[in-house]
Amino acid sequence: MNCILLPAANFSGDSAQINTVAQIAHIDKVLAAKVGDSLKIGQLGGNLGTAIIEHITPENIQLRDVQLTMAPPPKLDLTVVLALPRPKVLRRLIMDMTALGVRDIILINSYRTQKSYWQSPMLGRLDEFVLEGLQQSVDTVAPRISLQKRFKPFVEDELAPLISNRAIVAHPYAALSFSQYLQQQALVTPEKNEILSVDSSSSNKTAFLPSIVFIGAEGGWIDYEVELLATQGCQAVYIGQRILRTEAAVNVILGQWLL
Amino acid sequence: MNCILLPAANFSGDSAQINTVAQIAHIDKVLAAKVGDSLKIGQLGGNLGTAIIEHITPENIQLRDVQLTMAPPPKLDLTVVLALPRPKVLRRLIMDMTALGVRDIILINSYRTQKSYWQSPMLGRLDEFVLEGLQQSVDTVAPRISLQKRFKPFVEDELAPLISNRAIVAHPYAALSFSQYLQQQALVTPEKNEILSVDSSSSNKTAFLPSIVFIGAEGGWIDYEVELLATQGCQAVYIGQRILRTEAAVNVILGQWLL
Repeated sequence: MNCILLPAANFSGDSAQINTVAQIAHIDKVLAAKVGDSLKIGQLGGNLGTAIIEHITPENIQLRDVQLTMAPPPKLDLTVVLALPRPKVLRRLIMDMTALGVRDIILINSYRTQKSYWQSPMLGRLDEFVLEGLQQSVDTVAPRISLQKRFKPFVEDELAPLISNRAIVAHPYAALSFSQYLQQQALVTPEKNEILSVDSSSSNKTAFLPSIVFIGAEGGWIDYEVELLATQGCQAVYIGQRILRTEAAVNVILGQWLL
Repeated sequence: MNCILLPAANFSGDSAQINTVAQIAHIDKVLAAKVGDSLKIGQLGGNLGTAIIEHITPENIQLRDVQLTMAPPPKLDLTVVLALPRPKVLRRLIMDMTALGVRDIILINSYRTQKSYWQSPMLGRLDEFVLEGLQQSVDTVAPRISLQKRFKPFVEDELAPLISNRAIVAHPYAALSFSQYLQQQALVTPEKNEILSVDSSSSNKTAFLPSIVFIGAEGGWIDYEVELLATQGCQAVYIGQRILRTEAAVNVILGQWLL
């Protein structure tokens, strides 16, 4: 928890209150903060800033001199479509995608998604995992998360309007690597070639990053899924030649967006 | 488990045997493999290949027609020096660094490493976590892992000979980004500039990647540590502006080595 995020309702003028167990425990045990200390806080969906601890009880921490003057960091211009993973890893995946600044997350069914995953109580706790990711990365703006229980109708009917931008599906058995994909995009986008020839590695890379990425869960995508995505213009690419666990893959792939 | 790795002692001519509980359970429950089926196997430290299941009992699986003809994937030319993390996350970190192909891992003490972490029984199970990482990523060669309980003597006495190559310390508050670092390296290495001007993003990037990376655990490095590393020529860089959990950071950072 690198900042404490509070909903708008907890603010009043230049004071605010903290009343969730996890946040109070963090301030008490990890930060060991006392009355008069300054805290890094933020308003969910709003700005970041600081406040001074005025009063502490086991159930409530009162803050004064709230100053919310710093805008949250920008989001990545990116939609991640993730095959719904095992409930056990869902928490960390949502946390990490949130922390990395993904703007839109779509949890989708896939051939290798077990039906029981859709019944998991973890799906009712997404807001909690998002809050953890925001407080980790010092951001206030939650990603939009939606659930798509049917793969084919989504790909055939809803993906097309989204895909006006570049789309890829991460697939360890693809013929094209991520960096080859970026080079191809550079070649077919002549008006951006000037950037490419002047600048070095990083800056030209961002100019050709896809805005939609499909990432499989354990076992990845089956050929049918990769082929259906290809009919909609979604290119299969691999990143590295090794097969990674879903969590590692998500961070490795999204790390390509960071400079 | 994308392959089953066995020690050399389990092979005899063109037959082999599997006798560990986790591997037998995986073959039985996840793969649902039967007598006559082919398995993807490998010899620890040796080659990868296939074998046919000859006989299955609850404690032992006999394999025939063992063919080990494929060399394991290359290792990254990279030493990761990781501040010893909480035991709870050590397993996944070792798995992931192994899966990504790191050649050398040094677990080191840091100001924010709690003393109790060095007493954890998890440190006695590193071989097990390495095996998981190798079987995940279909590799056979374990990274070398060493423990360094004293930060200052290691940095002052042992780092210097290692650091003949480029070294960085990941630090969210660094003034220089990872991509700026790569650009700087390109400028001070004139003989490689030809690569830079001809090629696009990815290829020139690999030419200037550091071979030693220091990664902190929760709370990162303190200023003293970053400064001590700087005296030995280790450059502080940030990757992205957001603070990530250790596991996410390790995968994001090492993902920069993949193409």
